[in-house]
Amino acid sequence: MNKQAILHIQDSPYCFPVSGHEMILRLRTAKDDVKQVSVIYESKYVFAEKQRTAKLEKAYTDSLFDWYEVKLDLTDTRLVYVFKVSDGKEKYFFSEDGLTEKYDYKLGYYNSFQYPYINEADIVRPVEWMKEAVFYQIFVEHFNKGIKNKDCSYVNLKVGEKPTPKCFYGGDIPGITEKLPYLKKLGISAIYLTPVFKSPSNHKYDIVDYYEVDEHFGTNSNLKELVKKAHEKGIRIVLDAVFNHVSANSPLFQDVVKNGRKSKYYNFFVIDGDKPDPTKGNYEMFAMVKYMPKLNTSNPEVKKYLLDIAVHYIKEYDIDGWRLDVADEISQDFWRDFRTAVKGAKSDACIIGENWHDAYRNLRGDQHDGIMNYAFTKALLDFFAAGSIDAKGLSYRFNELILRNKDGVNRNMLNLLDSHDTSRFITMIKGDRKVMKEALAMLFFYIGTPCIYYGTEILLPGGPDPDCRRAMDFEKAGPDKEYGDIYSLITSLAKMRRTEHIADGTYRFSDKGDLFVMSCKTAKHEYRLVVNHSGKGKTYEGVKLSPESFVIMKDKGVFLYEED
Amino acid sequence: MNKQAILHIQDSPYCFPVSGHEMILRLRTAKDDVKQVSVIYESKYVFAEKQRTAKLEKAYTDSLFDWYEVKLDLTDTRLVYVFKVSDGKEKYFFSEDGLTEKYDYKLGYYNSFQYPYINEADIVRPVEWMKEAVFYQIFVEHFNKGIKNKDCSYVNLKVGEKPTPKCFYGGDIPGITEKLPYLKKLGISAIYLTPVFKSPSNHKYDIVDYYEVDEHFGTNSNLKELVKKAHEKGIRIVLDAVFNHVSANSPLFQDVVKNGRKSKYYNFFVIDGDKPDPTKGNYEMFAMVKYMPKLNTSNPEVKKYLLDIAVHYIKEYDIDGWRLDVADEISQDFWRDFRTAVKGAKSDACIIGENWHDAYRNLRGDQHDGIMNYAFTKALLDFFAAGSIDAKGLSYRFNELILRNKDGVNRNMLNLLDSHDTSRFITMIKGDRKVMKEALAMLFFYIGTPCIYYGTEILLPGGPDPDCRRAMDFEKAGPDKEYGDIYSLITSLAKMRRTEHIADGTYRFSDKGDLFVMSCKTAKHEYRLVVNHSGKGKTYEGVKLSPESFVIMKDKGVFLYEED
Repeated sequence: MNKQAILHIQDSPYCFPVSGHEMILRLRTAKDDVKQVSVIYESKYVFAEKQRTAKLEKAYTDSLFDWYEVKLDLTDTRLVYVFKVSDGKEKYFFSEDGLTEKYDYKLGYYNSFQYPYINEADIVRPVEWMKEAVFYQIFVEHFNKGIKNKDCSYVNLKVGEKPTPKCFYGGDIPGITEKLPYLKKLGISAIYLTPVFKSPSNHKYDIVDYYEVDEHFGTNSNLKELVKKAHEKGIRIVLDAVFNHVSANSPLFQDVVKNGRKSKYYNFFVIDGDKPDPTKGNYEMFAMVKYMPKLNTSNPEVKKYLLDIAVHYIKEYDIDGWRLDVADEISQDFWRDFRTAVKGAKSDACIIGENWHDAYRNLRGDQHDGIMNYAFTKALLDFFAAGSIDAKGLSYRFNELILRNKDGVNRNMLNLLDSHDTSRFITMIKGDRKVMKEALAMLFFYIGTPCIYYGTEILLPGGPDPDCRRAMDFEKAGPDKEYGDIYSLITSLAKMRRTEHIADGTYRFSDKGDLFVMSCKTAKHEYRLVVNHSGKGKTYEGVKLSPESFVIMKDKGVFLYEED
Repeated sequence: MNKQAILHIQDSPYCFPVSGHEMILRLRTAKDDVKQVSVIYESKYVFAEKQRTAKLEKAYTDSLFDWYEVKLDLTDTRLVYVFKVSDGKEKYFFSEDGLTEKYDYKLGYYNSFQYPYINEADIVRPVEWMKEAVFYQIFVEHFNKGIKNKDCSYVNLKVGEKPTPKCFYGGDIPGITEKLPYLKKLGISAIYLTPVFKSPSNHKYDIVDYYEVDEHFGTNSNLKELVKKAHEKGIRIVLDAVFNHVSANSPLFQDVVKNGRKSKYYNFFVIDGDKPDPTKGNYEMFAMVKYMPKLNTSNPEVKKYLLDIAVHYIKEYDIDGWRLDVADEISQDFWRDFRTAVKGAKSDACIIGENWHDAYRNLRGDQHDGIMNYAFTKALLDFFAAGSIDAKGLSYRFNELILRNKDGVNRNMLNLLDSHDTSRFITMIKGDRKVMKEALAMLFFYIGTPCIYYGTEILLPGGPDPDCRRAMDFEKAGPDKEYGDIYSLITSLAKMRRTEHIADGTYRFSDKGDLFVMSCKTAKHEYRLVVNHSGKGKTYEGVKLSPESFVIMKDKGVFLYEED
């Protein structure tokens, strides 16, 4: 037995409650190395005297490991347990003291594993509406101009042109409100907007005033109206919380530039010296961007300043959540208080971090609900664009990804093919329309919440920022237009999420003869997405799959089929 | 290479800051399996372009694994990194994507490891005074009677007798105040008291009124005086926070017994039915103890009720911290708010959980500072009492234990040989005075804070609760009495902690020819504790060690020597 491969971590994705009386337990072993894994468990206060046993099933695998899993239904929620692992020859107990040939239950109070008590407050539950939602991300400036009679002298970008870092197309908030019927038809139920507050740039991640909608984008009333109209259509609105940094033009920073240490905002920033000098950048900033000085969120005054903003837009504008810009560079301490404030104002507001890496530290239930799932993006790019992993490799990768977090978090991950910060997926796959459809099917089928970046429905191309931010072209948008097949597929997939309730299903990933298979078992049905990216024609349960095609099966029948 | 043995976890005891610019990184491999481990790192925003490299040193080992370690001194605190592991034949990169033969730094933003930004608020720092303190735990009822002219008709236990679960000796708070000079002489700098509030039992873990000192123990003024007098002597006072449950006699619970759902305290508890019935126990309780109904800490009113108490004794009585009873069965959500309230009232108040198991979930910096280190107790029992591990096994165990938590937490662990909840250590080692001295040397030398259970200095014996709670016998206590050698050893060891500053040292554990060796390197010196539990006479660097003896070396010289 490869003893060193065996892993279990208490109160982690290897051990967590999913309800007031149900626990998921997982144990990792080396691949194809052991014959049987069981858990010996009982209530904490009787474990010394008697124990129960349950078998774990092999549920996940990758190139190195197998993961065994069991769901325990408990009568007493004070769980203590040890594992028993056997490969047919060797047999070990596995406890806090590691692998041992014997185990003394009488001394279990010292070294058993445990989940000491299931407290309701510690169960990581997903935001219910979010797990069934279909998101649409809008880069506001380049989406749609809705304000009539606007002074458009600042506008210098047209549809079809390549954006520059500083160009303006003239998009605004009324332009989004105008397109709500369009989005509703497409199947969208939540919109996430890049920042809308007063800011000199086109992206507006350098905010000058958090309490004013940028004048190019409209008025505060326009924002209020957007939320109201969206809600009338059953669409939720999520705003972008840029709390890591402000614009160097912000009155707060300018006050420090003028008054140095005498400014009451001096400690709002982290400055090396008496005064910040925007030409030198003698202060902490976002990346190496001098016009974005970093806020000192360890300062309680700054914390209050930002939390007031977070709560203000929920209470006064009724927004439905926040996407957190540069979430990983702000302290966890800040995000804990942020969660308390936001959920206190609206208990089902969603909190989505911009975290590109494994963000388990922010996803234990005390900070974010989910994150922008760039690791999912990378898996799809590796499979469809780089070709560095095959169907088996993709199933391995997905197994690894969903084992990073507890189940409730996986159901609130914001899955995406691309965003304003990446090249467009369609460009990465060299415009291959069939591959795009496979990727969309994966996006909508995968555990968590799909998010469509604006323009995906017209296969808007684009390389790295700013090229990925081209103006939306509504002339091309709709079921009967040039990209109608893509539009219609999105509509169908969005409908699937509304009607089939796969958001609550149990997911498994595998490969079958070069086909990638993702299955989702709900209370009533078993769904399977089968993707043929093998380069050859294939048949799956009687369904012919030409190269670069997919089928979604519902039990034994075909639910959605993209044929050649 | 045993690929499955390789482990790294971001923001964990494998990756954490120890200051605003220093990071500890650790990587686990199979034992004696690899030749070189290095880390390739840089600031997040330049990693794609250039990288630095540092070598990791093998720092810890056990029977299965080696752990490699490096401390990085950063100029930019936004760290991204990947490891490079080589066994001379195979060579791999190790990133979020696992082991790979190649690594593309240009795509590092997707899959490198990272510690995104060192925020001051997230650094886990120890309570400074606690890491240098010597604690003394007092079971108040059985310690010392100090109130003159007290009605002692309830007293039914004498010194030397075996306690029963319900016996009373008459100990009280003035009895502790009276003994402050004695404790000061012994070298004690902090006292942790079992509960002192109104309660019918002798242990007082079933509290009736959190705002009243129990009448057997004295008055609220007596408590205030104890803290004041202790502080005058440089001794800190830590109280026991019994927040998991109350006494069934508590007015809160009695109100529910009387009024059922109509009581405003109904939701202070978790009751199955309209009314709690203490004869049936139709409610959540501590263990299976009907007279201890569990408080519903998920109820915000209960949370406020308890946090007010926690803050009250800091603000009004100036206590220096709380020990948290049954800490692991209360929600983490509660402990997070508890920390905010307690540290808000006194920033260096200590918070010590009663957690018998790996408590990493409570020790990430947002909840407890440390815990009662029963895993340390168990290691010493396995080595000295059960004989189930040898010197090598003990060094392995200690390595495993200190790798459970970040460094700042290890320095706030409350290390103990025994407590009111275990058999006395002297009884477990069958009264062997020499072994006791070895154990005391380990307790005081080990990383963290030593805690002496009252009576240890007179080798007070005792089996499981209540026998481990015998009355203190001051007739036997002192340097010139029967157990003067133990008393004096404690005094010497306590002095060592005050004068040698080992609390800040770097610890390593090993064995040398059946001798157990614990080393501690401070800024100025290297200290080593060498324990001979081999059963044979040994020599260590010229120092003769008879069976069951120890020596503490300071650099090349003898610092403290327990000869036969």
